[in-house]
Amino acid sequence: MDLESLSQTGGEWLRGTGPESDIVMSSRIRLARNLAQYPFPNRASDSVRAEVEALLRSQIEQKPAGRTLDYIRVDQLETLDRQFLVERQLISRELSEGHGRRGVGVSAGESISLMVNEEDHLRMQVLRSGLALDDCWQEINAIDDAIEAEVNYAFSEKLGYLTACPTNVGTGIRVSVLLHLPALVLTKEIQKVFQALQKIGLAVRGLYGEGSQAMGDFYQVSNQATLGKSEEEIIATIKDVIPNILNYERRGRTALVKDNRRGLHDQVSRAYGNLKHAQTISSEETMHLLSSVRLGINLELVDDIDVATVNELFIHTQPAHLQKLRHERLESAERNVIRAAYIRQQLNQERPSEN
Amino acid sequence: MDLESLSQTGGEWLRGTGPESDIVMSSRIRLARNLAQYPFPNRASDSVRAEVEALLRSQIEQKPAGRTLDYIRVDQLETLDRQFLVERQLISRELSEGHGRRGVGVSAGESISLMVNEEDHLRMQVLRSGLALDDCWQEINAIDDAIEAEVNYAFSEKLGYLTACPTNVGTGIRVSVLLHLPALVLTKEIQKVFQALQKIGLAVRGLYGEGSQAMGDFYQVSNQATLGKSEEEIIATIKDVIPNILNYERRGRTALVKDNRRGLHDQVSRAYGNLKHAQTISSEETMHLLSSVRLGINLELVDDIDVATVNELFIHTQPAHLQKLRHERLESAERNVIRAAYIRQQLNQERPSEN
Repeated sequence: MDLESLSQTGGEWLRGTGPESDIVMSSRIRLARNLAQYPFPNRASDSVRAEVEALLRSQIEQKPAGRTLDYIRVDQLETLDRQFLVERQLISRELSEGHGRRGVGVSAGESISLMVNEEDHLRMQVLRSGLALDDCWQEINAIDDAIEAEVNYAFSEKLGYLTACPTNVGTGIRVSVLLHLPALVLTKEIQKVFQALQKIGLAVRGLYGEGSQAMGDFYQVSNQATLGKSEEEIIATIKDVIPNILNYERRGRTALVKDNRRGLHDQVSRAYGNLKHAQTISSEETMHLLSSVRLGINLELVDDIDVATVNELFIHTQPAHLQKLRHERLESAERNVIRAAYIRQQLNQERPSEN
Repeated sequence: MDLESLSQTGGEWLRGTGPESDIVMSSRIRLARNLAQYPFPNRASDSVRAEVEALLRSQIEQKPAGRTLDYIRVDQLETLDRQFLVERQLISRELSEGHGRRGVGVSAGESISLMVNEEDHLRMQVLRSGLALDDCWQEINAIDDAIEAEVNYAFSEKLGYLTACPTNVGTGIRVSVLLHLPALVLTKEIQKVFQALQKIGLAVRGLYGEGSQAMGDFYQVSNQATLGKSEEEIIATIKDVIPNILNYERRGRTALVKDNRRGLHDQVSRAYGNLKHAQTISSEETMHLLSSVRLGINLELVDDIDVATVNELFIHTQPAHLQKLRHERLESAERNVIRAAYIRQQLNQERPSEN
């Protein structure tokens, strides 16, 4: 796969379409699988890792369930390219920072990525724009079945799929929904929502998963437990709770507009103005301002930009993306200048008229 | 004179032309005169004030020194219209808030205004864009001579021209230069400059004269003493000191660009973006942001707007101007919304391209 061409486009999941896409940025399901005859990657020798990599790569190249995937040898990439794939949500930090032979198979629209020799031998992920967990599950299940027909997964009748970390044993599934919750942040109700989610065993994380900060008012809601429930039950738990969060956020948005439409419009419009005019801007401020603009688009306070452009900017203004754009490594201060120039270029392509 | 048509245009002194106009917004000379046979306005009965008003009005209507002036009866104006003339720098607050018959003669380009029954019977003012004190003096002197040839000014051989307030006795002259000093404000050197000016007997005031705050980094430098020196000497004192202030400001600007061109460009450009996008904005913030943009134009950091537009916005976004634009009285919060809309309209007429 050509990373240069990848850097020019955006993943399908950034289109901003699909059910509830005013709040739900994307849906994602990943499955963790291991090959029965090999030790887990953290226990495997280099030669074993190489063997696992070759075996799973051949599976990926055989178009599992008819899906064409480009395979990338992550261990042969430079640091910047690995960071780029992390920002793109195609590989995990763990795969990026790991050692030994490892890789990822990526579909053309970036909706499927199959990681080899991450924490587990195989980590499969399907991403979709909007709230589309059933689609994710159907697709990942088909791929999983296709590969399972060819290899011998580590599986226990009692526990289910065996994984390197006990928290993934059983179904090996993680079901996540990436939510944009600016109104709940503005109205300071977000903590209450998190506490409620934690009580029913769901985790809340930032845009870049475990340990990442919640930037741009994005929150990933996902299951914690993988054991003792079927995949369908785990998906159902998430599907049941999401409408409540969407209701809270929508109620928050309505209240903000009702209480102070002018002030909100001002905030949104100035955020847009700052993005269009900044000559230097940090990643953090970018996420913050983009979040305001994204809210503004959904509340029809901004009408000359589409949500896909904003969604892409969240990803394409990340450090490695900017450095690939310039084909060089850049210090933070240089990146802030390049970031501002890139944002101006993207936003000033839009229609000039506005309210 | 039609105040409606006045509200559509800007005074000539806002053109942003003339010597040193990157820093010197305008030059202004005013003369205080009284008629010998009448008590000063604050001691005059209503009938005396009326007599003075009629006498001086007839002088103004006789085109002194060939200058055509429209005469406005200020006491017959509504409060809003009087505030409008104050914001326009055509009358003083004192004339606006006074009582009894009083008026002002205004030339077409708004460079001459002759106030009747202010603190003194006659207050003459000439304004020019840029540093042009000699032009101001020539013009006001000609008008003064023409009127003096027709009326009997209160004059003492020992003291000179007699005025209602002792601080104006002698020449009755106030020579002012309105300076835009954003770099000296940013570098915090402005206080040093003020102290130096005060030591040589010069006063520093804000945009709207005595007691007004220095908004938008505008400062009026003017003489304090009117006694014991000729008009030419007083003008020479100001003319001598201004180049030093201009040097300080220019040195400050050069240092700002040298030390942090990017940061300055960012500040200027974001100020412009906020002005173009705000949905509600206070007068204070407007002045502050316009000041940044004005600096940016002069440093060639902004290139798609001319300085005359910015100069006009300083005046045309004042409260009475906005209310005349809408033909209604508006509360502060409403004005902030109208102000933002007016600024967006003015700035989005400009070419859309920018750095």
